[in-house]
Formats: sequence, C-alpha cells, structure tokens
Amino acid sequence: MTPTPNASEPIGIAVIGAGYWGPNLVRNFQASTRFRLRWLCDLDVERARRVLGGYSTVQVTADLDEVLADPRVQAVAIATPAGTHLTVALAALRAGKHVLVEKPLAATYDEGRRLVEEADARGLTLMCDHTYCYTPAVLRIRELLHSGELGELHFLDSVRINLGLVQRDIDVLWDLAPHDLSILDFVLPPGVTPVAVAAHGADGIGAGRACVAYLTLQLSNGAIAHIHVNWLSPVKIRTAIFGGSKRTLVWDDLNPSQRLAIYDRGVDVASPDELGDEQRRDILISYRSGDMVAPALTEREALRTMVDEYARAITTGTPALTDGRSGLRVLELLQTASRSLTEGGTMIKLNEGRMA
Amino acid sequence: MTPTPNASEPIGIAVIGAGYWGPNLVRNFQASTRFRLRWLCDLDVERARRVLGGYSTVQVTADLDEVLADPRVQAVAIATPAGTHLTVALAALRAGKHVLVEKPLAATYDEGRRLVEEADARGLTLMCDHTYCYTPAVLRIRELLHSGELGELHFLDSVRINLGLVQRDIDVLWDLAPHDLSILDFVLPPGVTPVAVAAHGADGIGAGRACVAYLTLQLSNGAIAHIHVNWLSPVKIRTAIFGGSKRTLVWDDLNPSQRLAIYDRGVDVASPDELGDEQRRDILISYRSGDMVAPALTEREALRTMVDEYARAITTGTPALTDGRSGLRVLELLQTASRSLTEGGTMIKLNEGRMA
Amino acid sequence: MTPTPNASEPIGIAVIGAGYWGPNLVRNFQASTRFRLRWLCDLDVERARRVLGGYSTVQVTADLDEVLADPRVQAVAIATPAGTHLTVALAALRAGKHVLVEKPLAATYDEGRRLVEEADARGLTLMCDHTYCYTPAVLRIRELLHSGELGELHFLDSVRINLGLVQRDIDVLWDLAPHDLSILDFVLPPGVTPVAVAAHGADGIGAGRACVAYLTLQLSNGAIAHIHVNWLSPVKIRTAIFGGSKRTLVWDDLNPSQRLAIYDRGVDVASPDELGDEQRRDILISYRSGDMVAPALTEREALRTMVDEYARAITTGTPALTDGRSGLRVLELLQTASRSLTEGGTMIKLNEGRMA
Amino acid sequence: MTPTPNASEPIGIAVIGAGYWGPNLVRNFQASTRFRLRWLCDLDVERARRVLGGYSTVQVTADLDEVLADPRVQAVAIATPAGTHLTVALAALRAGKHVLVEKPLAATYDEGRRLVEEADARGLTLMCDHTYCYTPAVLRIRELLHSGELGELHFLDSVRINLGLVQRDIDVLWDLAPHDLSILDFVLPPGVTPVAVAAHGADGIGAGRACVAYLTLQLSNGAIAHIHVNWLSPVKIRTAIFGGSKRTLVWDDLNPSQRLAIYDRGVDVASPDELGDEQRRDILISYRSGDMVAPALTEREALRTMVDEYARAITTGTPALTDGRSGLRVLELLQTASRSLTEGGTMIKLNEGRMA
Repeated sequence: MTPTPNASEPIGIAVIGAGYWGPNLVRNFQASTRFRLRWLCDLDVERARRVLGGYSTVQVTADLDEVLADPRVQAVAIATPAGTHLTVALAALRAGKHVLVEKPLAATYDEGRRLVEEADARGLTLMCDHTYCYTPAVLRIRELLHSGELGELHFLDSVRINLGLVQRDIDVLWDLAPHDLSILDFVLPPGVTPVAVAAHGADGIGAGRACVAYLTLQLSNGAIAHIHVNWLSPVKIRTAIFGGSKRTLVWDDLNPSQRLAIYDRGVDVASPDELGDEQRRDILISYRSGDMVAPALTEREALRTMVDEYARAITTGTPALTDGRSGLRVLELLQTASRSLTEGGTMIKLNEGRMA
Repeated sequence: MTPTPNASEPIGIAVIGAGYWGPNLVRNFQASTRFRLRWLCDLDVERARRVLGGYSTVQVTADLDEVLADPRVQAVAIATPAGTHLTVALAALRAGKHVLVEKPLAATYDEGRRLVEEADARGLTLMCDHTYCYTPAVLRIRELLHSGELGELHFLDSVRINLGLVQRDIDVLWDLAPHDLSILDFVLPPGVTPVAVAAHGADGIGAGRACVAYLTLQLSNGAIAHIHVNWLSPVKIRTAIFGGSKRTLVWDDLNPSQRLAIYDRGVDVASPDELGDEQRRDILISYRSGDMVAPALTEREALRTMVDEYARAITTGTPALTDGRSGLRVLELLQTASRSLTEGGTMIKLNEGRMA
Repeated sequence: MTPTPNASEPIGIAVIGAGYWGPNLVRNFQASTRFRLRWLCDLDVERARRVLGGYSTVQVTADLDEVLADPRVQAVAIATPAGTHLTVALAALRAGKHVLVEKPLAATYDEGRRLVEEADARGLTLMCDHTYCYTPAVLRIRELLHSGELGELHFLDSVRINLGLVQRDIDVLWDLAPHDLSILDFVLPPGVTPVAVAAHGADGIGAGRACVAYLTLQLSNGAIAHIHVNWLSPVKIRTAIFGGSKRTLVWDDLNPSQRLAIYDRGVDVASPDELGDEQRRDILISYRSGDMVAPALTEREALRTMVDEYARAITTGTPALTDGRSGLRVLELLQTASRSLTEGGTMIKLNEGRMA
Repeated sequence: MTPTPNASEPIGIAVIGAGYWGPNLVRNFQASTRFRLRWLCDLDVERARRVLGGYSTVQVTADLDEVLADPRVQAVAIATPAGTHLTVALAALRAGKHVLVEKPLAATYDEGRRLVEEADARGLTLMCDHTYCYTPAVLRIRELLHSGELGELHFLDSVRINLGLVQRDIDVLWDLAPHDLSILDFVLPPGVTPVAVAAHGADGIGAGRACVAYLTLQLSNGAIAHIHVNWLSPVKIRTAIFGGSKRTLVWDDLNPSQRLAIYDRGVDVASPDELGDEQRRDILISYRSGDMVAPALTEREALRTMVDEYARAITTGTPALTDGRSGLRVLELLQTASRSLTEGGTMIKLNEGRMA
C-alpha cells in the first residue's frame, strides 16, 4: 500500500478525466505546493494533451492501470461521468490510492456505499468534490449557523436556474441539485437533518427528462428547505435565503460585491412554551426592522481550498469536511427525490436505518 | 332595481370598508370621471373620516343599510375582511347594486358561488378586484401569451416574498397566493387550465399558520406552474418567469425601469412528432442565444384601469375581465391548495365538474 | 401683521401655484394637523379645481390679493415658476405672511437676498422647500457627517440623470443641480464650505441650453465635490458617494431596500503631519476591507417632514433647517456655476464677502 | 532582420515582465496556435518561474539581450512599468522584433513618438495592448457608432471607480483613464476627434497624487465626453453611457447578463437647419419612449482577441486596430489632461499639428 505522505513533501496526484471539470482540477493541483501532478489520464489522449497545452511537463495517458501502477502516485482525483465512478474509484482504492471524486459520489446510493466501505476498510481518504462548500460564502454560512448567530433555522429557499446544457443521461435534479443538497448537508448545525423529501418537475420541451424541478425537504427541527433547479431560464439566478430565528441571511452568488447579506430584520413571536394552547392563535407577534450587514469575504477560489482540504485529510488521516459519507447522504436525498418525482410528488421519508 | 347607468353620466358609487385597501379605492373612484363617490361606509366612522381627511364632501356612515337605501348609489366596492364578503355583497346585490369585491371573492368556494349565482340571477355586474391583472405589465403578458408570441407555455415560476404582516385569520397562502393565482387565471391562453395542485408549507416561527408556502400546479398542456409565497423574507422579491417554446419572459415588478424582459434565448428541440420512440432519448437539442427586449410600458396605476373596467362592465352589461367567475376559479385553487397543505403536499386534482 | 400662531391651533395656509409641484404641497398640508389649508391659488382656476378634485372644501382663486387679504391665512407656500418668486413672496411677506418657496429660492442671488432681508426685517419665517433634505436618507447622512462617524469628507460624487423634461426657460443645471447643491449645503459639517466652482456642459441636441452638465466644487477642507446632471439619459440614476476618512457612504435613492450603504472599507494613510516632506511620496498606504452596513431607515415622505419643519419654524420663530439663507447659498453656487459654464469651465472662487 | 513570419507557422514570442499583467499575456500566448512562447523575461527570475509554475517548458531569463539575440523570437510583448517602455521597446525594435506594449505606450508623448517612428522606419509592427478595445462589448459599440445605428454622438459619460491600489509613481488619471481614453479613441466614428480637455482632481487622503479625477473632453462635433476615475470608491462601477441622436447605449461591464443595453428612448428635436435663428429658443422637442434591446454578445476573453490581432498585424504587415499611433493619441490626451490638472482645471486645446 502506498504510504501516507508526510506534510513536508508533496503528494503525488493523478487527475482522471479531461472533460468539463478535469481542467479545473489540473490547474488547481498544479498551483498547490501540497501536490505534485504526475498524470492526466483520459480515454481520449488528444483531449488530455489539449487540456495541458503545449508547454507542459505533465504526463498523459489513456491507461488507468499505468497511472495506478506508478508508485509516485499516492492520490487520484476522478472527474469522469458519474456512471464510471464506482469502477474507477474502486480500482484506485484497491491500488492503495486516496480518492477524490467529482460530485455526485456515484451513480446510485448502493454504489456510493461500496466506495465508502472500501475506503474505510483500507484506511484511505475518500473525499467528494462538493466544490461550493469551499467557497468563502458557504464556509461563512456554516459558521453562522453552527455558532447560532442566525438562531434556529426556520426555512431555506435555494434557487439555481440558468440556461443550462440539457444533459444526455441525467435530469436537471441530478445535474444541479447535488450543489444545493451538499451545501445543505454542509451548513446544517449538528442535530438538524432532513427527514423527508418531495419533488415536482416538468419536461416542458420534450427532452425526455425533467428540465425544471422543485424539491421540498422537511428537516428534523420542523423547518422547510426548498430547492428550485431549472435548465430553461434565460436569466441566471443563484440565490439562497436562510431564515433564522435571530437573523436572516441572503446569499447571492452572482453579486461579487455583496454575496452575503445578514438582516437583523424579521418577525418575533413570544415563545410557544410560555403560552397556553388557547393563546397559540392570538400569539404576540412583533416586527423587527434592523440593519443589514454584508460581511467582507476573502476572495479565494473554492477549488484551491478544496485541494488544501484534500491534502489535510490525506496527511492527517482524518475525514475531509466533505468526505465519502457526506457524498452518500447527498446520494440518498437525490435518489429519494427522484422516486418522489416519478410518484407525482409524494413526500417520502428518508430511510432512518441508513448507513451514513 | 337600480337602472343600469348610461355612459354619459357618472355612476353613483359607495366604498364599503375604510381599512387597508379602502383608501386606495376612495382615491381612485374620486379621480374617475365615470364614477361619483357618494359614501364611505365603515363600522368605525372615525376611521372613515380620517381616510377622507378634513376637506372632503363625501358622506360617511357606519350603516350599510343607509348606503344601500340611497337611490343615487348604483354600485358598491367592498373592501371588508373576506369573512364578511358574502353578507355584504349579498345585501348589495339584493338591493340591486352592482358589486366589486376585494380579493378573495369570498371566504370559501361555496360562498363565492352563491354570489355569482345571485348576480347572474339579477343581471348585475359582479367583479373581483384582482388588481395586479390591471397593471400594464400583466396586461402585456396576457397579450404575449394569447397572441402566441411566447409560443406555448412550458413553465411559470412566481416568487412573492417579503417581510409581510402575519395575518390573524389567514395563512400566507390565502394572503398572497390570490395575486399569483388570479394572474395565472388571467394570462393563460384559452384552453390551458390548471388540472391539479399541491402545496407545501411551514410555520417556522410558531405563528399557528403557514408563513412560507410553495404551490405546484399542473396545467392541462403538461406545463408546470410554481408559486412561492413567504412572509418571513427580509428581502422583497416579486418576480415571475414565463417560459415559452418561442421566448421566455421575466417580470420583475420591483424594477420600474425594466419590468418586463423578453428573451429570445432558450432551448430548441426537434418536434417529438417527427421522431420515433427510439429517438426520443437522443433527441436533437440546440441552444438559441438571442437578444433581450425590454418593451416600453405605459406607467398607469392599475387601480385606475380596474375602475375603468368596472364602469365598462356596468354600462355595457358584459362581464368584467376579472368577473365573479374568475374570482371563483381562484377560490377553487386556494381551497384545493389548502387541502393539500394539510394533507402533507399531495397533488390533488381539481374538480372537473365545477361550475365556473 | 398676522400674529404668530401658537402650537395648539393649526396654521392657516394657502398654496400658490397648481402646476407640477403644487399638488404635492396641497396633499401634504391637508394631511398635516399643524396646518389648515384655506386656499389654492393659480392664474388658471380650472387647473386649481382639477388639482383639488370634485370633492374638496378648499377654496380656489386666481387672485393672490384675495388670499393675502384673508386674515385666516398666516402662511403661504409658493410653487410658481422661479421667475415669479420675488414678486409673489415679497407681496406675501409684506402682507405679514410666513413664506415657504419651492426651490430655487429666486431667479437670481440678488432677488433671493431681497427676500431674506425682507423676512429678516419683518421677523417672518422664510423657508426654502429643499425637499430632498428631509428624506430619511439625507437626514441620516447629515447625522453621520456631523457626528464624525464617516470621518473627514474627502470627496462627494453625485449623479442625477434621467430622461428629463427639457425646460423652456432654464438649463439642466438650474433644473436639477439645486437638489444636489442643497443637499451638499445641508450635510456638510460646520466649518466645511464650498470655496470655488467650475462647470462644463453641452447641448448635444440643439435645445438652446445645456442638457448635460458637470459641476466641480472645491471645499474649504481640500475635498472635491462633483455633480453630474443630465436630461438625456435613458436610464435613471440617483446615486451619491460620500468618501470619508473613516468610512464611505453610498446613497442610492432608487434602491428602496438599501438606500444607504456604509462601507468600512477604504484606504488608510499615515497622517501627513507625522511625516517629513521627503517621506510624502513614499507614504505608507494600507487597505481596509471591512463589512458594509445598510442601516434601517424609517420610510416617511420627505414633504411631510418638511411641512412639520415649516410649522416648527413658524411657531418657535427660529430658522428652518432649510431657511432663506440656505436657499441663498444654493443660488450663489448656481449663479457662479452658470458663469463658469459660459466661460468654458473656469474654476471661479465664491465671493467671500457674501451675505449668507 | 527577423523575417516576417507567414501564417502557417507560429510566431516566436517572448513576454518581458512577469508582474501584474505579464501572467495574463503568458496564458494567452500559450493558448494561441498563432504564437509559440519562447521566453518569459523578468529581472526577478524567481518571480518569472513562479508565474510559469512547476510544470512548464518555457525558458526563463533576467537578460533581455539573451531574448533579443534568440533568432526563434520574432516578436515581444512588453509588460514592464511604463517608465521602461522606451528602453525595452526600442531595444526590441532595433533587434528587428515586432513589439506589443502594455498601456500606456510610453511614459510621455515624446517617448511614444520615438517608438512609432522607429517602428515605421523599420517596417515593424508596433501595437498597444488596449485590452478593453477587444472586449465583445467595445467591439459592438464601435460597430454601432461607425454604422450610424446610434446616430450622431451627443455625449459620453464613463465611470471607472473602485477601491484601487494607490500607485507609487502615477496618479489615478494615468492609472485608469488610459482605459477610457483608448476606448474613446477606438469607438469614435471617422471624423470625430477630441479637440480640448480639462481635468479636475483631488488627493483627499494625502497620498501625494490625485486619487479622484474627472476629465472633460470637447469633441470636434460639439459633443462632450466625461470620465470619472477614482481609487477610493468602496463600490466598483464600470459604466459608460453613449448618448446618440437616434439611440442611447448603456454599457455596464459588471453585468455579464446584460453588458449592453440600447435604448430607443430619448429626446427628439426638429433639425436646427430647418429653423430660423429666432425659432432656436422655441425649438420643438418631443420625447420618445421606446423599447430597450440588450444584444446577445459572445463571451470571449478580450486578451485572446488582442493576441489574434497582434498575429494578424504581424503576418499581413498592416497596422493593428490599436497600433502605436492610437497609443500616441491616448498619450497626448493623458499628458494634456495632466497639465490641466496642475493648472486648476483649465480647458486646454489639443495640439492640432500633432504627429499621430
């Protein structure tokens, strides 16, 4: 088995897949002092060469085995289609390599579980590239929810719409909702989890799969989370509202000068515990109209932070912030939402006996 | 019975209710040459006086009977709480007065139906003040959908959120969704109708009623309509996207310089009819990336246009654009959505044998 | 002479001029308990009647003398063209009435001075309706600059552009810049005053007067103020940036949800006093990148606050916040800017021996 | 002399300067099939190495002579401080290399002229990297102004403000205004040229040089152009309005979904030629309130297009769109504006006998 690298020498890495996402991984692993990029591997060698450009010393191959046989390679980053994640990642784990997988972790929950089990059994790092979780904005949202600064979460409304590429093999839910679901999984404070999910969708244009979808999640604290994903919108919107009992946060990812806005504005109610049942209907409600604060955020590429976290997880042997288990929880939500979609929008309870 | 007025003399009108909406009606009926405002009636006479101000010649009373007995009054406009609409409107119709009712038409579908039947039986105008339908923006949207300029409707996504007054007697769905549902009813081209509705909601703050709600409607042409209403958002959003097969329209009601934007941008697919079943999955999809046009709109207060339409309906004896029946259709949608809300979000078919 | 009213009874008021601005004054004086509107006076009596509408008890006349002879009238509000301000206001002051004048105070500095002297001599209130000064936003800006929260003012940049009505008798500078100049006069902390002004302009469309103008003002503390006014812009912009040594404030008057934004973000330099001349060029500069705060503002119509201030000035006998002298200072700036415009943009010192 | 390359083989290029701008040039020359990057040259070799990263085959040197002696190098791209442009570019031209220079062309007009003359004498390409001119937005604006679609230009208002790095050696005018002036030079239709320039500025923070500046330019057709550049603004604005006789264009470079908006909205006047002198003051003015069109723009990196244009100029031997002469015209404007700044804002005529 490939020895766990120590912090003083760079980790040998290979990127598998030179398609849409691969080039971003190549660029960020090259820029990191914690890694040494050894290979870019793609079935289409010419594509891999184009990605590296005409001035690169990085090796190119179409042969995964060649990469996995290289003892200088201690870790891989997989950016191939979801349907191939199981095979590629399993091969890498079995070759003793640490594994980073592009979202979603695998094509199904069961496939994802096999990867988690394999990595566990071998004591290797398995990490899911939930890139958004590493943006300065989402890291701050997590902090605000975990620290209690927003109070208890009442509702989350997320919109991710755009004129998106209609995918051949997956619907809009599997294409876009992993972002929102991984963010949800990442920022929820300990003890608050999704308990049920429903999904509605439509295929207006006759594409053979949903191009517009709405997810509704019930959370364990009674809150509601709602996600709107859409390939057909001519305007691009990436906004989420986190309604808390103390403050409400608005995240507008397309407004670089004010990505986060925290409103000390909202509705107060007397605590239900202090009131008798009779009074519940005449509950005292008051309005707060306070200031808004837009915190200064460092501008740092999320992928760079993700790459650092991968290095940290490998060298310390502790789980990454977005480890295989988080990828598995997202898969469970996706799979259940898909079932609801085909069942006409029924609210489906999540399996309580699930592994993750 | 009060004779139908002819176009040359103003219609005597009384406004019933001097609360939140009444003052707007008072102002607009006073500004119209088609009406002569005779009374402002409210149980709280002092409130009525304050609404008129210290310089008015309009009469004030707490006694509805006094108003209805006045032969100079040919029509009334009712802006009292929804629970009183049946009683007040029925009394007015029975006194031979034309009736305009603030939305919603009545507290229940059955009450609404009694009003429609009463007006029909007496040959009187019954109109519902679906104010938004008379904005220049919605009138234009209707035109664009009816004329086919947007093509066939694929999806409608409407968001109406704000820090709203938590109502004592109704939830956010009954408070805000009538706007979106009446607009939907108004703009849909002939032959396209809602066929089923589901609603999810949450009462995060313990107010005893839903403060956040999501409605999903299936339309008869396979399209989806989705409405997000929310009392707890610190930011105010009033946006709707109408995705059509030819063009997509974005309505941002809070952007006065660009309320409507029509995008010649979208996704084209080869007609499903031209393809065999096998080909459906490999359907040819292409992207259009065209210009956006923001049409110039006249700035005109919607209530003024609504008041004109009331006069037109009364004098011609033809139904108003938002007549009692449209109010009834909105009530059916609201009532069904409410049922879905209590049933955990089930998709419920609308009654096909319904009257309207 | 009309006795100064005491606070317990309403002040009898007459509005002179029923054109563009008059109706707003009529509405606000009617809504105020501190005033009793007696007359609306306009050479065109029909226009005055239309403004009041068909339900008003307020008297109408074309005869100013009739108004001034009415002992119930203690104060007037003048909204006639600037060229008539001297005659009308002088007549009112000589009849012992308090006077509020729409901006600008008069057509020339000398005319304005005659009004100030006349009011002084008679101990009457002379106030200029610099409406913007009474918006919650400008009142807050004044507070922030006077209290030192923004630090010392370094620069002010104001943009007020729109597709404006090309005026027959005045250029864009006299039409729009009074707003910005009165705001500048209102918010500058004690001791900081304009010392010189330059103006550039253009009449692109051949209208016979400048339709686009730029004003540059030097302030006594070395700061610069710049104003862009423009009748030809298809987009409406009303933004001002107040750059202070501690914080920078951005006022966007067309963004009701965030009119003011205070940035704790900027450039710090070591104090010049601590450095020798040699060091001035290698001065230590550091950047702060702090949060932004958008303070909650009460939404209150500026004219209502202005009307209250008029009542306060009359009843206490103390100068209004925007008294005749402030109107005079604005006139001096306008007149000097006009001279600079005709002289090709020369920077002209303001008369230090000026009265105000 | 290095032979002019033919279109079929890549042009050997060296980038001189690995500071702020150099890395962008390196990236784009590497991505272009028209060039082959041979050297990155910087006095600080380590910095050059860091720019190339740990996987590059490109050669690094601190010795300009080594680069210029390399016969594989046919062209250079200079991204060193402006004060060194003359020396470096002259050496390159004398070595027979084509030269691309970062803006501004040189530190003074006279230095710039020496470069233009040297390149002319040797028949070599001299190009200035006015990057903004190669954005899809500016290319479209040029097209719209040259084709007459906007009509005659009446005014141009450009705002480029941000929290910018206070430069050690140059003021805000020399730092930012080259962008706006090169754009102006680029888009003005044939026959319309600047004839005079004035500049006002301030150094609020005691930085020893202007941090805020306003330029006013008179154009030969009577139009006005105004430029606001500012290092001290906490908000970033990059907007320009081009007011034409037929349409007005608004360019918001920070709004990727709607960078250009063309308004068919404005003010019409009867042609002055049709009117006698007497009538000029009572000129007939009418308002148009038309639609707005936001044209679809290709998203393409400007530097890539600039690099293509450099290759085109070299291989065809014809001047680049932003050749040395355009760089020289921008220098004349900058130098004259600087003089006006020190002279307190005087409007200074541009030298009519100038070379360019």
